[in-house]
Amino acid sequence: MTRLEEQLRFIVEVDKVKQIFRQTYLSDATRKENDAEHSWHLALMACLLKEYVKEPVDVAKVIVMVLVHDLVEIDAGDTYAYDPEGAKSKAEREQKAAARIFGLLPKDQGDYFKGLWEEFEAYETPDAKYAHLLDNFQPLLLNDASNGKSWEEHGVKKEWIYKRNEKLPETSPEIWHCMQEIIDKHIEAGHISQD
Amino acid sequence: MTRLEEQLRFIVEVDKVKQIFRQTYLSDATRKENDAEHSWHLALMACLLKEYVKEPVDVAKVIVMVLVHDLVEIDAGDTYAYDPEGAKSKAEREQKAAARIFGLLPKDQGDYFKGLWEEFEAYETPDAKYAHLLDNFQPLLLNDASNGKSWEEHGVKKEWIYKRNEKLPETSPEIWHCMQEIIDKHIEAGHISQD
Repeated sequence: MTRLEEQLRFIVEVDKVKQIFRQTYLSDATRKENDAEHSWHLALMACLLKEYVKEPVDVAKVIVMVLVHDLVEIDAGDTYAYDPEGAKSKAEREQKAAARIFGLLPKDQGDYFKGLWEEFEAYETPDAKYAHLLDNFQPLLLNDASNGKSWEEHGVKKEWIYKRNEKLPETSPEIWHCMQEIIDKHIEAGHISQD
Repeated sequence: MTRLEEQLRFIVEVDKVKQIFRQTYLSDATRKENDAEHSWHLALMACLLKEYVKEPVDVAKVIVMVLVHDLVEIDAGDTYAYDPEGAKSKAEREQKAAARIFGLLPKDQGDYFKGLWEEFEAYETPDAKYAHLLDNFQPLLLNDASNGKSWEEHGVKKEWIYKRNEKLPETSPEIWHCMQEIIDKHIEAGHISQD
């Protein structure tokens, strides 16, 4: 198999991420969002919101990080943010998926993508923190636009959201403040439960 | 309206591009692809195929270019590649859309995205040529994977495809060679008509 053939089999394989659906609804609430759409949205947001992040970040790298961050879900499926059962086996399922999916590429390119995915998962570098901020903020914006539909369906509690976002206040006080206002609005409307 | 509010209204507005459907089917042929999925796929391909392009390109910039290249379709709709009637009014419809959609952003960011979109449309710089190569190659790969379903539905002719791709041989002889092989295979299978 030539190098180009390896690249093309990866490119066609990852088309499957368009069929991995998340729990978040589109802004018009007509249907749930898939991982490809979500990743596109994060990449675009990465271009726009850097100015709110306290530590210096490499936007070009963060864009590629968010483009590939959900590819493992082709094999491992989407694990809902507030699913404690699914969370137990998530790391193992996703490690296996990463080995197979990134392994389709020529080694240099597969290692590069896998490294970005691992950096994202480790959630330690400023770039990974920015990517997580985007990954958490985007569904909140869609939930807000779709009138809290997904929050209501899952009986989401304020404390779950705060726990999930515990690193955000240090990453970006402004964005976290904006998120808190949205959360408060939906607690008041009864879409998020207070306790 | 604060700067952040302007950025967020843009981010929520462009969610609509997930509802703009193209004529290309996903690789499994179950449904057509939308613009957000398509743009995500091009951005990922931009990371991988630079080595086949003859002139030097700025991959980080091309990625942002393909992320925003179809946003005008939120207002202007998708104009099918082989629709001569739609092509007549396309430029005017898309110019209006660009002014409105990029105009939602703070001026510096709106101008940056609009500039990238204009560079893409002008199809003259090496970066724009690489973006167009990706924009033409990706649906060909999906059409191949989905057994030529969209080509058959639209009675696509070899000469239409060659005309649409006339700049690709100079942009990347290797990718164009690969595309020719795929086209030939589907002419033989009767999915693309020879004349």
